[in-house]
Amino acid sequence: MRMFDIIAKKRDGGVLSREELEFAVMGFTNGQIPDYQMSALLMAIYLKGMTEQETAQLTDVMAHSGDMVDLSAISGVKADKHSTGGVGDKTTLVIAPIVAACGVKIAKMSGRGLGHTGGTVDKMEAVPGTETALDRQRFFDQVNRIGISVIGQSGNLAPADKKMYALRDVTATIGCVPLIASSIMSKKLAAGSDCILLDVKTGNGAFMKTLEESIQLAQAMVSIGRHNGRKVAALITDMDTPLGHNIGNSLEVAESVEVLKGRGPADLTEVCYQLAANMLYLAGKGTLEACRKMAEEAVASGAAYEKLKQMFAAQGGDVSVLDDPANFPQAAYSRVVLAKESGYLVRMNTELVGNASVVLGAGRITKEDSIDFAAGIVLHKKTGDRVEAGEPLATLYAENEGRFDGAEEMFRNALTFGPAPQAQPPLVMARVTESGVERF
Amino acid sequence: MRMFDIIAKKRDGGVLSREELEFAVMGFTNGQIPDYQMSALLMAIYLKGMTEQETAQLTDVMAHSGDMVDLSAISGVKADKHSTGGVGDKTTLVIAPIVAACGVKIAKMSGRGLGHTGGTVDKMEAVPGTETALDRQRFFDQVNRIGISVIGQSGNLAPADKKMYALRDVTATIGCVPLIASSIMSKKLAAGSDCILLDVKTGNGAFMKTLEESIQLAQAMVSIGRHNGRKVAALITDMDTPLGHNIGNSLEVAESVEVLKGRGPADLTEVCYQLAANMLYLAGKGTLEACRKMAEEAVASGAAYEKLKQMFAAQGGDVSVLDDPANFPQAAYSRVVLAKESGYLVRMNTELVGNASVVLGAGRITKEDSIDFAAGIVLHKKTGDRVEAGEPLATLYAENEGRFDGAEEMFRNALTFGPAPQAQPPLVMARVTESGVERF
Repeated sequence: MRMFDIIAKKRDGGVLSREELEFAVMGFTNGQIPDYQMSALLMAIYLKGMTEQETAQLTDVMAHSGDMVDLSAISGVKADKHSTGGVGDKTTLVIAPIVAACGVKIAKMSGRGLGHTGGTVDKMEAVPGTETALDRQRFFDQVNRIGISVIGQSGNLAPADKKMYALRDVTATIGCVPLIASSIMSKKLAAGSDCILLDVKTGNGAFMKTLEESIQLAQAMVSIGRHNGRKVAALITDMDTPLGHNIGNSLEVAESVEVLKGRGPADLTEVCYQLAANMLYLAGKGTLEACRKMAEEAVASGAAYEKLKQMFAAQGGDVSVLDDPANFPQAAYSRVVLAKESGYLVRMNTELVGNASVVLGAGRITKEDSIDFAAGIVLHKKTGDRVEAGEPLATLYAENEGRFDGAEEMFRNALTFGPAPQAQPPLVMARVTESGVERF
Repeated sequence: MRMFDIIAKKRDGGVLSREELEFAVMGFTNGQIPDYQMSALLMAIYLKGMTEQETAQLTDVMAHSGDMVDLSAISGVKADKHSTGGVGDKTTLVIAPIVAACGVKIAKMSGRGLGHTGGTVDKMEAVPGTETALDRQRFFDQVNRIGISVIGQSGNLAPADKKMYALRDVTATIGCVPLIASSIMSKKLAAGSDCILLDVKTGNGAFMKTLEESIQLAQAMVSIGRHNGRKVAALITDMDTPLGHNIGNSLEVAESVEVLKGRGPADLTEVCYQLAANMLYLAGKGTLEACRKMAEEAVASGAAYEKLKQMFAAQGGDVSVLDDPANFPQAAYSRVVLAKESGYLVRMNTELVGNASVVLGAGRITKEDSIDFAAGIVLHKKTGDRVEAGEPLATLYAENEGRFDGAEEMFRNALTFGPAPQAQPPLVMARVTESGVERF
């Protein structure tokens, strides 16, 4: 077998066999196939596409390029969740405890933030003392004992994806559904859960800008799951505006607690219930309606919040900050951004809002950057709201006053005002399962 | 400017500007742009194509990546010729002296053979003593004095092409018209002649297998010439069967001499007259008919043969082998291949015939291989001929008897016999000029 022939076959629109995919991916991962051949293949895949089966096989090959986490030491059904990334997206911190409180095991590896999007591991670490690098045994024991653990990615998960992603990133071959889907799903397959719920963010703050692209990506990922013996479903959720009001690590933990206490913002609360209900449904806990009710009851009873505290406590976190966010280390400086004009907030450039939070210190531009956990933005107005001149639009938080001017300018540039409110997309735009696509 | 954006633009079907092409090609040639980005761009070009202007600009950028040979020290019109490569293709040795005898200067750099196709520089060197590595001054002086010199490629001609070709060769991006055309024409533009006649070989012994592909390639190259101020035309000639009867270096020199003495095989003679007439026409020597007549007269008068001898003599060659090929160093061994059956020779796999000559020692598999100048094949029967069982099909020549069995088997496998003759394509299938395409 020769890489040359594999490239030529895909270039001419052929369907690669499992053996060919394995030869290409493993050869590249081992360093036997050079970057320049892999980048030619990736461009050919970008432009010629892949069948569902081909994509599923590519994903399985990528998953098997490293450790396959064996969760069989954990009893019961294990559920995982993945978000394609957004601004203010703290849903994992809400739904993982809800689902665990309902008896489905959460043994989850999460990522860190990069660019305008945040990551759950950073948010976890905003709670002082929290460890996110547990060894395998402690991770398993914790899940068996309290039903939940969220840690950083450990071990050698899907190294093929890591190397392929780095090459795609510099060869303009990122935005291709089979490659995005296989990248995400290879890590999820390797991470070992039985059920995987995907939250595909859509809109100006998301990687996928349109509903149709998002549905395509969701379908590809659900198909990968089906071909590889996992239960997978996806919700397409709105990211044309940040989720909830708080952006920034400790700010987002505090807002998650609000939702678990039953007093969170309506948009975030609704998205969390729908995500949690779908995870419970995938895990076989009943009809979607019954699962939704179960999730609401876990919040109403306090069981879900209790589960969150148990998790942080088990991982060494100071849970006093959950009970009272005033106990969080506070930002040294804050600035209130006031509206200069009256009107309706008709559009937020969500990516730019995320970037403003990065300027404040809440996120990273490169993987090596450190984070100020207390930095971030609290939105007082969101898309659709009426604003009077002089009203507060947002409060910015930072450790360094010098960051405010740039962040404020960026934040203001993200906002578009108009004379009348505009129709907003639904919070959950579609649901994709093995049975098909439901649009809302 | 970023290579990433250039790749993305082409990936999305955009048209690259001259500045973008220069950034990509020069950056890659200088080593500032890595192979893996160039291979992604090449695959995007392969699959998305290039406009005529884009291709012309790419070619000009590639030509200017190294030395641009300045032929202004040579008086008069300078004409060049390029063949895309075939088996038994010795036309340069015939038409260059014809054209020079008619007063058009030939200051030509030629290549060596590789794989199943031969190269003019190897054939030149088959004449004992011939030097093909003249310095620039001696090359110019010879052309000014006797009107003709053919040497090997010297200096740093189109290094971008060399590096890009090597990358295309391992990333399945060779067979793409804009890339083939720019590769060929970048070297021709750099080599400095005013007029360039292209011989695009078509058929089972050529790189281009079909007439339509060949016409596309010819049109792309003529367009590149037009955009870059050179006079360019192309003939599409048949390579479904070897040209002439002799394959191998000294054998082909001897056959070229036969044509120049007016007693060469009909197919080779006709192709040479048409090529020569078109070169003279491009150089402004009159109508195509007048140019054809001029070429025929240069042969009939002996002037063209005299020019060939002058050229070899000026480059140190032993011209006694031209006057009598018995003076060539002879192959140690020969074997006559006899027909095993009667019938019509309906098809020759020309590439396989070329490969049989390589097995005999007449060509190279890798650039480092040495060549036996006396080795080769003389065809006694060609496509269309009636053959009786027991008649000689060909004579094989080699320095080493051990090569015959493999070569004979390969040669026999190249032949297909049938009960009736089959229609053969015309020797010259089309002519492509700035005015359009004439098909014959």
